[in-house]
Amino acid sequence: MRARLAQARIGRLATVRADGRPHVAPCCFVLAGDIVYSAIDAKPKSTVRLQRIRNLETNAAAALVVDHYDDEDWTALWWVRVDGTARVLDAGAEFESSLDLLTAKYHQYRELRPRGPVIAFDAARWAGWP
Amino acid sequence: MRARLAQARIGRLATVRADGRPHVAPCCFVLAGDIVYSAIDAKPKSTVRLQRIRNLETNAAAALVVDHYDDEDWTALWWVRVDGTARVLDAGAEFESSLDLLTAKYHQYRELRPRGPVIAFDAARWAGWP
Repeated sequence: MRARLAQARIGRLATVRADGRPHVAPCCFVLAGDIVYSAIDAKPKSTVRLQRIRNLETNAAAALVVDHYDDEDWTALWWVRVDGTARVLDAGAEFESSLDLLTAKYHQYRELRPRGPVIAFDAARWAGWP
Repeated sequence: MRARLAQARIGRLATVRADGRPHVAPCCFVLAGDIVYSAIDAKPKSTVRLQRIRNLETNAAAALVVDHYDDEDWTALWWVRVDGTARVLDAGAEFESSLDLLTAKYHQYRELRPRGPVIAFDAARWAGWP
């Protein structure tokens, strides 16, 4: 499960809105130990895209899923999910080191380093299928 | 947004657990009007995979995201998300017609028709990026 999560290029992060409804959005991320880091990057954003940050400031619980889908071979399908709590980093040593890790994984971040904030998601529980 | 959602082969469905934590899982689905149908199919399941049904019975709010990721060309990325409420169908006319639609989209369901239940997700709000 760890290798599949670490190698995935994109995941989908679920959070909960202040009113109790779920939110989900695709995100790039990097796994460091048991912490998943994901940056709000420098691409143009609507306010909708920043919803995940507002949600985490109210309810720190988060879940990230990565999966493999094959339209023809359903025996090849798999997913890995991590559940835990997330912190929002705006500056500091962990913020900078997480951006270094993200930049090492995604060459696009080398051209335009994300300004953040960074979501630091402490993955407490792992689940997978099959 | 409608065409992108309808044509996507897999989405990720977020729900909220009874304790307020988020849950997210990949799912096959079909769009019919403003309703997204997704079946619990006949593949072996752990209890974890049925969590989404238990969640919806407590909190009907759901969110589904579909997206396109291209590791090299980040100008090609997009996502579409629908938010709304979901009903769990165990039998009846809508249950059967939804399975017909799912079977038309996914040939694997022709070989083994899902036994259900079916999630009928009324998509009330649409969002997309870019």
